[in-house]
Amino acid sequence: MAEEEKTDRIEKRRRQSPKGEERRAEILAAALRRFAEDGYQNAAIGDIARDVGLSLPGLLHHFPTKVDLLLAILAKQDIDSADFIGHFRSDLRSLLKGMVDIFRRNAGMIEVVRAFAILNAESLMKDHPAKTWFLNRTARMQNDIAVTFERAIAEGSIDGGVDAMAMAAELIAMMDGLQMLWLRQPDRFDMVGGLEAYVNRLLTSLGLEH
Amino acid sequence: MAEEEKTDRIEKRRRQSPKGEERRAEILAAALRRFAEDGYQNAAIGDIARDVGLSLPGLLHHFPTKVDLLLAILAKQDIDSADFIGHFRSDLRSLLKGMVDIFRRNAGMIEVVRAFAILNAESLMKDHPAKTWFLNRTARMQNDIAVTFERAIAEGSIDGGVDAMAMAAELIAMMDGLQMLWLRQPDRFDMVGGLEAYVNRLLTSLGLEH
Repeated sequence: MAEEEKTDRIEKRRRQSPKGEERRAEILAAALRRFAEDGYQNAAIGDIARDVGLSLPGLLHHFPTKVDLLLAILAKQDIDSADFIGHFRSDLRSLLKGMVDIFRRNAGMIEVVRAFAILNAESLMKDHPAKTWFLNRTARMQNDIAVTFERAIAEGSIDGGVDAMAMAAELIAMMDGLQMLWLRQPDRFDMVGGLEAYVNRLLTSLGLEH
Repeated sequence: MAEEEKTDRIEKRRRQSPKGEERRAEILAAALRRFAEDGYQNAAIGDIARDVGLSLPGLLHHFPTKVDLLLAILAKQDIDSADFIGHFRSDLRSLLKGMVDIFRRNAGMIEVVRAFAILNAESLMKDHPAKTWFLNRTARMQNDIAVTFERAIAEGSIDGGVDAMAMAAELIAMMDGLQMLWLRQPDRFDMVGGLEAYVNRLLTSLGLEH
């Protein structure tokens, strides 16, 4: 191969790469929409290909199986929310208020929230490919939240009798449950206001200011 | 047809009828198990037939479609829990304590709870056959719980500033969310203890005794 020709091809690949990334992002967005509408189990990879104007082999070139699509979405979500709690972890009041902020952001992306709520429940079925991911995510969130409660106990800002791990679980449960109600009736149910009322009551009962 | 023969056939049908009821109950139990393992969308009606030792036409004689199976399960659940709240509705403290009792009962039937949690999330997908059922069930529960809060406000036993409909939604969200955590890790997570702690804190903050 002539040297210029080789350089040309490398150059061409370099130029294509951002486009490849764009294409992958487009495919993942379409897959998320399908998962939100049909559920992961039911979604057809052929429909996702059609949504982005690709042939099935064209899509399979990027993501060889439906599981690869799912894992890529979950990996992206992991990066997006890696500092979900980290940001607010420094003190308990900021953590709880930060959760309300997250809800305010989530209220603007109902499709993503719907896809995750359905995947979350689907992953309770035996042998679901996202089972481990949701298990790890829940365990990590619970631990991270519990650490903040434990710090507040250690600093004496809340009562020593508070069960940090149980409180962390309660917060996760409340967020999951409120999101479900909102997903069912987004026009009738105010999930941000609902979480805010709960958090304010919790702060009061912990002896902290709103 | 001779009169005795006719009487014989009627008699035979009468004797078979309880057996038919038993058979239907058996099929519904098997369907619920399958829905809990595979989700409604994914469950195969042929598997359900095999589980109860019927041919596919044998099962279709009782339930012509998978939707009929689903609706029969939901109708049965409706009867089972018709007085779910009615029993406890007389005062707010009994209602909240009664919810903990329901959880204690549910902890003994994980398959049923799992099937309902998965159906609940699946029904968020467009065109799911259980969409209306879950919507109505949630609306009815929220109204029933709110009525009890409103009565407590009217009687002056809790503060008039409490938002009855919002509190009812919060309770439903908490129950749904805690059940999800328990379904993911039944051995690690105590949903009865979790709900009890939440309810006791709520009673205290409403100014009521545990």
